[in-house]
Amino acid sequence: MTDAKKILEDVRQGIVSTDEALLYFQKEPYADIDFAKVDQKRSIIQGNGEVIYGQGKSTEQIRKIIKTMLDAGQKNVLVTRLSADRKKELEDIEGFSYYDDAQIAVIGGMRCADGIGKIAVVSAGTSDLKVAEEAVITARFFGNETVRIYDAGVAGLHRLLSNLDELMTAKVVIAVAGMEGALASVVGGLVSVPVIAVPTSVGYGASFDGLSALLSMMNSCASGVSVVNIDNGFGAGYQASLINHIR
Amino acid sequence: MTDAKKILEDVRQGIVSTDEALLYFQKEPYADIDFAKVDQKRSIIQGNGEVIYGQGKSTEQIRKIIKTMLDAGQKNVLVTRLSADRKKELEDIEGFSYYDDAQIAVIGGMRCADGIGKIAVVSAGTSDLKVAEEAVITARFFGNETVRIYDAGVAGLHRLLSNLDELMTAKVVIAVAGMEGALASVVGGLVSVPVIAVPTSVGYGASFDGLSALLSMMNSCASGVSVVNIDNGFGAGYQASLINHIR
Amino acid sequence: MTDAKKILEDVRQGIVSTDEALLYFQKEPYADIDFAKVDQKRSIIQGNGEVIYGQGKSTEQIRKIIKTMLDAGQKNVLVTRLSADRKKELEDIEGFSYYDDAQIAVIGGMRCADGIGKIAVVSAGTSDLKVAEEAVITARFFGNETVRIYDAGVAGLHRLLSNLDELMTAKVVIAVAGMEGALASVVGGLVSVPVIAVPTSVGYGASFDGLSALLSMMNSCASGVSVVNIDNGFGAGYQASLINHIR
Amino acid sequence: MTDAKKILEDVRQGIVSTDEALLYFQKEPYADIDFAKVDQKRSIIQGNGEVIYGQGKSTEQIRKIIKTMLDAGQKNVLVTRLSADRKKELEDIEGFSYYDDAQIAVIGGMRCADGIGKIAVVSAGTSDLKVAEEAVITARFFGNETVRIYDAGVAGLHRLLSNLDELMTAKVVIAVAGMEGALASVVGGLVSVPVIAVPTSVGYGASFDGLSALLSMMNSCASGVSVVNIDNGFGAGYQASLINHIR
Amino acid sequence: MTDAKKILEDVRQGIVSTDEALLYFQKEPYADIDFAKVDQKRSIIQGNGEVIYGQGKSTEQIRKIIKTMLDAGQKNVLVTRLSADRKKELEDIEGFSYYDDAQIAVIGGMRCADGIGKIAVVSAGTSDLKVAEEAVITARFFGNETVRIYDAGVAGLHRLLSNLDELMTAKVVIAVAGMEGALASVVGGLVSVPVIAVPTSVGYGASFDGLSALLSMMNSCASGVSVVNIDNGFGAGYQASLINHIR
Amino acid sequence: MTDAKKILEDVRQGIVSTDEALLYFQKEPYADIDFAKVDQKRSIIQGNGEVIYGQGKSTEQIRKIIKTMLDAGQKNVLVTRLSADRKKELEDIEGFSYYDDAQIAVIGGMRCADGIGKIAVVSAGTSDLKVAEEAVITARFFGNETVRIYDAGVAGLHRLLSNLDELMTAKVVIAVAGMEGALASVVGGLVSVPVIAVPTSVGYGASFDGLSALLSMMNSCASGVSVVNIDNGFGAGYQASLINHIR
Amino acid sequence: MTDAKKILEDVRQGIVSTDEALLYFQKEPYADIDFAKVDQKRSIIQGNGEVIYGQGKSTEQIRKIIKTMLDAGQKNVLVTRLSADRKKELEDIEGFSYYDDAQIAVIGGMRCADGIGKIAVVSAGTSDLKVAEEAVITARFFGNETVRIYDAGVAGLHRLLSNLDELMTAKVVIAVAGMEGALASVVGGLVSVPVIAVPTSVGYGASFDGLSALLSMMNSCASGVSVVNIDNGFGAGYQASLINHIR
Amino acid sequence: MTDAKKILEDVRQGIVSTDEALLYFQKEPYADIDFAKVDQKRSIIQGNGEVIYGQGKSTEQIRKIIKTMLDAGQKNVLVTRLSADRKKELEDIEGFSYYDDAQIAVIGGMRCADGIGKIAVVSAGTSDLKVAEEAVITARFFGNETVRIYDAGVAGLHRLLSNLDELMTAKVVIAVAGMEGALASVVGGLVSVPVIAVPTSVGYGASFDGLSALLSMMNSCASGVSVVNIDNGFGAGYQASLINHIR
Repeated sequence: MTDAKKILEDVRQGIVSTDEALLYFQKEPYADIDFAKVDQKRSIIQGNGEVIYGQGKSTEQIRKIIKTMLDAGQKNVLVTRLSADRKKELEDIEGFSYYDDAQIAVIGGMRCADGIGKIAVVSAGTSDLKVAEEAVITARFFGNETVRIYDAGVAGLHRLLSNLDELMTAKVVIAVAGMEGALASVVGGLVSVPVIAVPTSVGYGASFDGLSALLSMMNSCASGVSVVNIDNGFGAGYQASLINHIR
Repeated sequence: MTDAKKILEDVRQGIVSTDEALLYFQKEPYADIDFAKVDQKRSIIQGNGEVIYGQGKSTEQIRKIIKTMLDAGQKNVLVTRLSADRKKELEDIEGFSYYDDAQIAVIGGMRCADGIGKIAVVSAGTSDLKVAEEAVITARFFGNETVRIYDAGVAGLHRLLSNLDELMTAKVVIAVAGMEGALASVVGGLVSVPVIAVPTSVGYGASFDGLSALLSMMNSCASGVSVVNIDNGFGAGYQASLINHIR
Repeated sequence: MTDAKKILEDVRQGIVSTDEALLYFQKEPYADIDFAKVDQKRSIIQGNGEVIYGQGKSTEQIRKIIKTMLDAGQKNVLVTRLSADRKKELEDIEGFSYYDDAQIAVIGGMRCADGIGKIAVVSAGTSDLKVAEEAVITARFFGNETVRIYDAGVAGLHRLLSNLDELMTAKVVIAVAGMEGALASVVGGLVSVPVIAVPTSVGYGASFDGLSALLSMMNSCASGVSVVNIDNGFGAGYQASLINHIR
Repeated sequence: MTDAKKILEDVRQGIVSTDEALLYFQKEPYADIDFAKVDQKRSIIQGNGEVIYGQGKSTEQIRKIIKTMLDAGQKNVLVTRLSADRKKELEDIEGFSYYDDAQIAVIGGMRCADGIGKIAVVSAGTSDLKVAEEAVITARFFGNETVRIYDAGVAGLHRLLSNLDELMTAKVVIAVAGMEGALASVVGGLVSVPVIAVPTSVGYGASFDGLSALLSMMNSCASGVSVVNIDNGFGAGYQASLINHIR
Repeated sequence: MTDAKKILEDVRQGIVSTDEALLYFQKEPYADIDFAKVDQKRSIIQGNGEVIYGQGKSTEQIRKIIKTMLDAGQKNVLVTRLSADRKKELEDIEGFSYYDDAQIAVIGGMRCADGIGKIAVVSAGTSDLKVAEEAVITARFFGNETVRIYDAGVAGLHRLLSNLDELMTAKVVIAVAGMEGALASVVGGLVSVPVIAVPTSVGYGASFDGLSALLSMMNSCASGVSVVNIDNGFGAGYQASLINHIR
Repeated sequence: MTDAKKILEDVRQGIVSTDEALLYFQKEPYADIDFAKVDQKRSIIQGNGEVIYGQGKSTEQIRKIIKTMLDAGQKNVLVTRLSADRKKELEDIEGFSYYDDAQIAVIGGMRCADGIGKIAVVSAGTSDLKVAEEAVITARFFGNETVRIYDAGVAGLHRLLSNLDELMTAKVVIAVAGMEGALASVVGGLVSVPVIAVPTSVGYGASFDGLSALLSMMNSCASGVSVVNIDNGFGAGYQASLINHIR
Repeated sequence: MTDAKKILEDVRQGIVSTDEALLYFQKEPYADIDFAKVDQKRSIIQGNGEVIYGQGKSTEQIRKIIKTMLDAGQKNVLVTRLSADRKKELEDIEGFSYYDDAQIAVIGGMRCADGIGKIAVVSAGTSDLKVAEEAVITARFFGNETVRIYDAGVAGLHRLLSNLDELMTAKVVIAVAGMEGALASVVGGLVSVPVIAVPTSVGYGASFDGLSALLSMMNSCASGVSVVNIDNGFGAGYQASLINHIR
Repeated sequence: MTDAKKILEDVRQGIVSTDEALLYFQKEPYADIDFAKVDQKRSIIQGNGEVIYGQGKSTEQIRKIIKTMLDAGQKNVLVTRLSADRKKELEDIEGFSYYDDAQIAVIGGMRCADGIGKIAVVSAGTSDLKVAEEAVITARFFGNETVRIYDAGVAGLHRLLSNLDELMTAKVVIAVAGMEGALASVVGGLVSVPVIAVPTSVGYGASFDGLSALLSMMNSCASGVSVVNIDNGFGAGYQASLINHIR
């Protein structure tokens, strides 16, 4: 007798209430899903269990989460959006290192670079530096070799063009730009690999905290460009790493 | 040189008598036609009085305004936003010619090109053609030599760069682009003359009828770029002409 | 004597005008860039020269571009956004086939599937079908094996979950959804490969033609998700193909 | 059951005399304190008169309103949006207790839980905690049993699904989420009771202080979801209580 | 009471055999029709599976889905957003009836009204009628008694106030309003039961297709108000029914 | 014995149920309001009961409403937003006259002009004519003398300035303008009487259907300017009339 | 000989340059405008020369402007947006008085109340107090009797209704409200005099700093309502005064 | 005339030797300082390389860039957005001067005024002063004679009109205005030369940090107006200079 039939029989006999039976039938569509599989896979492969988003968490909370992770056998931990003044409160942790521009702390070192190729991070202006570095350190943490092409905004095109060789040998390109965000389109038109565009909140007047750059990148006339959230250097570095590790 | 200045010059040189000139300046400024006063006096001085914005006016209204203008001594008239199917109803007017792509009618021909130099009109994609042509014909009408550099979008940068000579010898550049509007920044970074940017409503999805391009151009990281309204090819051509006639 | 010195000498001697010389020095930063290289690389590798965006082009224009491409030795051509009623005017072209749901025409057949793995296209509702199919056919055209998981919206989660195996063996996932766009986050939380999210303009009331879905996807709490423009199935399929061909 | 109804019931059963009841209903509805009239009569009937919105009021003002309410015979008072540092200035009030995460003070204790069933409060991320707790404490204040299902964001779906039992036995569900707000749709697809969605202002970049989540929830593809204002945990808890007390 | 619960109750009372009940719960949940899977199992449990969203579906598609549903044992079917001119193509279906103002078709009749109390539907202006009626018919379909209070906009307050009796005895109120959406606040201030607000796209000028009303309702100063999507009369009726059936 | 006491007594004796009693106490705050007074006052004095908003109503509906009004003793009726092609279906009504530009029908003639002074209606461009005329005819209908100053946009300032006398002797000014809406500020700076600004949806590109003009007028640097909804000529004319009749 | 002819003659004779002559003709349209008239009229009648907008000006600047005004014979001066902590630096000025809630300083006292009738200022919540008081003090400064009806939000309708008499005898009503701004519509529906609506930036979540209230008021379904800028109590008070002084 | 052109002219005239000129053009374009490459070559040619955007850079960074520029032979340097309190840390640099209102530092003095004519800078209110001055000093730095017409807002039109002479003899006009931005249209209607409009973020309520002014200027009904970004006085001054130097 199937479980379902047994439960109905129990209802008939008054052993099981109709409410209990109803719950059984409501949950049934999800009964056979092996979430252990999902969960395990994620923690082993997806590899972003070792990431702590530092903003909005107290230093004490961060310290605790790091400890829990290390105790659970995690070898490397990445803490993003950790401002320089909070570094001191954590630097006694063994294996701690801090990247100023990226505002990232790494515990236990970077992974070995084992990606398909290099990830190039191109940025437009000095003020996009932080976001670009967040992408670079994130990519390196997850085992990627990176190339920086900075200050290569479209208003000084020759600077970008004089780095064509490096740009063209990368397997993935991350384009970081605020203001009008034109860099993503220009880069997308030059290379033949996936471009991850990161709008930054850098800009004045009608840039609306990155919205102008976001819309600009969304509407890129170049194929092969996709976009992550404003200032989300981590997201770009992480997805670039996923792409660079496809096999 | 505006007509007014030319006439004064002719007076100075004795080509035109003071009486003729007086008549010119005295012409009844408010020739009363019931739907729209044609403000000729100011127009004559400012030099854009010979322009009729065709959209939203009936063909009959346009015909009447043209007649009033010609009767008042106007030699050339420009009608913008005149769709091709309305052309037929007006082409019997003497001196009428029509520019299909620009959707512009000219009565009495273009002025002689007497600007300082050439105006280059650069456009990104095929779909920006209409707006670019509106700028070109407007500029020519007001006495400017023009150079077209079309299909020079930033996703195919070499196409733009292979026209560097023409671009760099222009005295004013009009950059027409929809989608992400990056063209304005790239052009602004290449030349050292004023750039008038025209966002177009061309685009899909999150381009929001030109808003994305407008914001992008507003936030251009290149100096020397100013922006006119979405699809306003006439406005760009007219201002470029003003610039090209400064003396 | 360097070219530069020679030109200065010519200026001194009055052989070359100062204007000509100025142009020379303005162009110089771009002189050494091998655009042939850029151009050639793009056309050979980037492989999107064979794509025609059908919307906004007349059937006659499309026919001409196809002919030019084939004459130039192109073997396969993809025409997107070609409505069914225009199919008839082109189907006499040799090797023409048409995909109704995707509104795509292919001339010369698909490329052989030679990607790293499979691309899964997941869509939320019946009304997202068109955009999902545009992604599928685009991916197949560029040589990718695809898997469709349709009608898997988050309001009926078990349907998505019952396809976990297929989802998890894909190398790239394209998530297509309108309305609240929650699908991208759910899928991004399940898989450990890059997810390309496509917001669609499907929705009512406050969905604002896809803006709601776009913002939702931009703000995905799952890592590894990037976003293309609203309804841009082609863009997602194309980037997924780039990712699936990285080597 | 509102106080008013309870008193009438007591009259019917002879527990309360008609004179006592009359006094109850006659209490001067506009006890005049100069900064804000406390509208008690309507409050008593509607049952939300015992609520003070703390934000924007000085501690002294709050203390006065509490006193007026208690003097008028109110037994329990709820003060929302009261930051922890203001707690000290009020904790001498008899019967005062404070809930840190919810930033709520309660004077006179919670009502007895007399609702139809339980109210489940589901939240997506740690940062939504405050809003979720405001909903929980509000619901408990008005006499409801609550169940917390926290950190159950859609990017970690299994965490939500492993609480199916609790979710499915609730009579009302409150779904609290920032960023992309997908939680409301997922929950709405799982349960068959009313879902009150609360967008939170948690998020970065293009989340626009909760607008992204609000639009997302508004466009939920699941039926049975309605939405309250951004961060309005009180509103959700209050409406859930109304629903849970319908008779 | 959902069908599922009713069947279990019948099992308990011996009215329905366990085998019949088992058959009911086993009915193939994915009856495959090519354009849209009809997910019956979940629908049956949740009780909104008998709903077809008519907009965007061809009449032929709708007919097929209806047939599949009826074949699967569904007794009543609701089709929303079905314009009057499509009614004729479906009215041969047995048990078909059509509600003009609501643009809803019902097959198999309404359920018996078995809710806790009445649902009042209040609307502001004549032009909100369609949305209000969609809410009314939906509520009636799911077994609720309804009361209509129409043309009760806040600019003519006395009309609303003269229906206080009916308004105050309802167990749930649906407030439908376009333009400035003030009705929701006014109603929310009068009653002490849950109010579901429906912004409508009715309005001119700066009403922005219902956005003005939506924001207005979101910001209601009255407690106990939650909001569904613009013009979503169905959603309001459905949620009101869920609330009115809580037990 | 007061009513309240009596009811409580009845509750005690079981003559009245607690629910009935509750309803009594819920309605009590509204018991003493003399709505007849409100209602009567409105219909007699406010005088906008004689207005029918034509848009969205069928001609048959309009005819019926007119008849009902006339039967009820109304002497004049105003129908706004009645397109010219619908005029014919109504012109058989006695006393019917139609104003083409304003798209207004008047039955029974205008009231006598009995205001304090004249109302000046200033408009910027030909395309604002319709809205301006709606304001003029509305004002005249409600018994005001009006002065038209048209085509007085700020780009041709002397035209406005040459009507200074008329402008300055008006008691109220209505300023109608689309595009950048600058007229309201200029007029507001010239006169010392109330200015009602009407943004119009006239404009192109980034005018966003009147939003640009609306914001512009809202931010007017001139004191004494208030704003009505986009294209709401009726609203402006009506309020101007109220102002012009204050006594 | 006219001036024009004389100038042309001078041009011919070389006495006047063409540039000077051109300037003469450019200025001519403005030659006959009697700006003295405009200016004088404004300063005498418009009466807002005595107003100083305090925000963004240093206390020293304000002191200087006041002195200049008094020296020029101005008897009363109004300073708006003057925070309480700056009061002390100015209170030594003779005739200085300060209104805390309104954040307004008055030098030289209010004008005598000489308007047609009273101006009623209605506000919704405690938090709208500042803006309402700014309107009240402004109106009183310009010689108007005022009536305050505060805390009369639509969620507690009877409070507004219990002030019907005062509301209905006012000649102008100012309605101040944040959040959903419904008050303007309700008041507009009750009275038959002009209503000036002031949206306030009070609100939470999706109120967007007053935008929600602004849109709501713009879309008011009541006739006779016009709107001033967000938080612009001064503007409302000033226009109400203009209206109340029409004669 | 750019420096580059001047040197070539000197070469032609034998004032500068070809070797000196060659050295000038060969100066290492990428003098490497680690935070920002100073791209001199292009700067020299384009003539805006001598500009440092001060905001977001540390004083130390600015000092370094200045030194690098001077070492490379740059004669004048402009530093924008340098707040007064940072002036002190730099004023020891030889040739340093500071402009308070403009928040600009100039090292090495202004260039000689060698433009075609004068640039007029018109501003609306006191609060637009900073932006206007940024435009003035920028224009003067690049060798232009300037005329200031301040406090000439449209609400006090006569102030603007009383400066007609100066306005009409300028070769380029910069119109600076916040709030409703009407100034651009009024000025554009008066003059017949290019107008560069600068929206400012000055304003309250619904001015949305300059967006209202920006849209207003974009939609100017006057021809010959183009717009730069909000508060971008530098951009306006720079473009005006380009225009004023066209030859």
